Amino acid sequence: MTPTPPTVVVLDADPPPRLGRLTGRARIVHTDAAHLAERLPEADVLLVWDFTSHAVREAWPGGGPRPRWVHTASAGVDHLMCPELAASDTVVTNARGIFDQPIAEYVAALVLAVAKDLPRTLEHQRERTWRHRETRRVAGTRACVVGSGPIGRAIARTLKALGVTTALVGRVPRTGVHGPDELDRLVSRADWVIAAAPLTAQTYRMFDAHRFGVMQPSAFFVNVGRGGLVDEEALAQALTRRWIAGAALDVFTAEPLPEDSPLWKVPGLIVSPHMSGDTVGWRDELGAQFVELYERWAAGRSLPNVVDKTRGYVPGH
Amino acid sequence: MTPTPPTVVVLDADPPPRLGRLTGRARIVHTDAAHLAERLPEADVLLVWDFTSHAVREAWPGGGPRPRWVHTASAGVDHLMCPELAASDTVVTNARGIFDQPIAEYVAALVLAVAKDLPRTLEHQRERTWRHRETRRVAGTRACVVGSGPIGRAIARTLKALGVTTALVGRVPRTGVHGPDELDRLVSRADWVIAAAPLTAQTYRMFDAHRFGVMQPSAFFVNVGRGGLVDEEALAQALTRRWIAGAALDVFTAEPLPEDSPLWKVPGLIVSPHMSGDTVGWRDELGAQFVELYERWAAGRSLPNVVDKTRGYVPGH
Repeated sequence: MTPTPPTVVVLDADPPPRLGRLTGRARIVHTDAAHLAERLPEADVLLVWDFTSHAVREAWPGGGPRPRWVHTASAGVDHLMCPELAASDTVVTNARGIFDQPIAEYVAALVLAVAKDLPRTLEHQRERTWRHRETRRVAGTRACVVGSGPIGRAIARTLKALGVTTALVGRVPRTGVHGPDELDRLVSRADWVIAAAPLTAQTYRMFDAHRFGVMQPSAFFVNVGRGGLVDEEALAQALTRRWIAGAALDVFTAEPLPEDSPLWKVPGLIVSPHMSGDTVGWRDELGAQFVELYERWAAGRSLPNVVDKTRGYVPGH
Repeated sequence: MTPTPPTVVVLDADPPPRLGRLTGRARIVHTDAAHLAERLPEADVLLVWDFTSHAVREAWPGGGPRPRWVHTASAGVDHLMCPELAASDTVVTNARGIFDQPIAEYVAALVLAVAKDLPRTLEHQRERTWRHRETRRVAGTRACVVGSGPIGRAIARTLKALGVTTALVGRVPRTGVHGPDELDRLVSRADWVIAAAPLTAQTYRMFDAHRFGVMQPSAFFVNVGRGGLVDEEALAQALTRRWIAGAALDVFTAEPLPEDSPLWKVPGLIVSPHMSGDTVGWRDELGAQFVELYERWAAGRSLPNVVDKTRGYVPGH
């Protein structure tokens, strides 16, 4: 008699690729947000594939057994964390590693496109207007990258490769990483301020009127972390009042950004639909990563990418 | 008695900066294109500051003495070369070095912006449309950079720093540079084909229907060299027929690009106004470079950046 394989409940809209490899080794149960609470008690493992959903932190506090392991197909875990999950014995892992290089390239694309005034070139082209401008040299400029996890470090590496003097800021100072008390000093000297931190109680709205106020008028701000890192109204005002030169938001407090949001039309603001990390094949990579972690878990081996549930991210090295 | 200082005729629209440093050591005479022919006989040195003008190759063949040295504030010399100048003893120098890093960054900006679908993101933003797309990873793609001078080499270095496998093609094969007989093979494998060659008899319209025909349907073509490198009609057709995915032209056969040019509206084509090398301070750098060369020349020392007038560029190392 074959033992019953563990049950993996998958919270998804579209089924994840690659899970077919687990046939016979896992009982896969798909659920949507509305039925997650019913499914949780039977789950040995919960795979949070739909990382746009807040269903986990809503369903988790209810009664009944809870899965021993939760994996989220995302870098951030803010969408699933709740005090009950944090206090439990359940292990939470994330998709650490998948998004690092894509997001770093995305940030480099924004920095270079802005330095070279590409958005205005595209506007002029629509109007059949030939208007030469002087552009900025990126090599020799300064960046401050806030968030010293693998994504922040990949951004720093990529910007450094382009000749940008780059400072990393993290929660705890260590070699190559500045602490939070240096944030204002570094932000105030930066041509490029990049938000790539996890969303935690400490980072919530860390980019507020004060912080935009200390930036240079020529500074460009990019958020590829989480919408909650930014006081969006303060950013809109900072741009309107020309406290800073421009910004790009890939993440928002409310996603999708509502059609009537004023953010679509703030001068100097580039709005993109939470796509910075999502290069062709990303879903395959996320699926393969879960399969690999599952195999370790099923074999009783230790898991990588384990989130510190009180801090809200995988502690760095 | 002080000897009369040499006469420097400056072909310009706006006077160059930094020439004040030559006060007392050079007699500076400004001229426009219409009066260049009259001025040439009195010139010991000709500074071609207005590099958009073809006045030199029109005025040079006329009678009278000719300057011993011509310096152009540009990388290309196609706008001033004529058989009479090529056959003369006059030394021609160019602005080698000033544009390398700016143009390399400009190309990187285009490559990254296209990989990350930034032009479409800006379109969607105008329409208040949230539409997630998968983008391309730049690391691991392949580029073919045509032109192995300092600009082409800077482009290759910058793309390599972003993880792009980059092949350089030059007139003569040497270490790290492929010869012209490998061009079709390399172009046909490239995700990014970058034209950064000087305009010479050999490179005139080297990007024609045949060459666009061997490129991959996913390929993106960039011209930061000279407009004459490209058969513009063949490029427009290649884009319209989707032989290639997209292109960006910073240089054109006719500049400024006429308002009624069909190129403004070719699908997938980014048009920019010959600005890839022109970062803030470029005019100062060009002025300072001329002053430095003038000081060497006046002291009887050898000049750097000497153009091989039959080849049409400064021979490489």
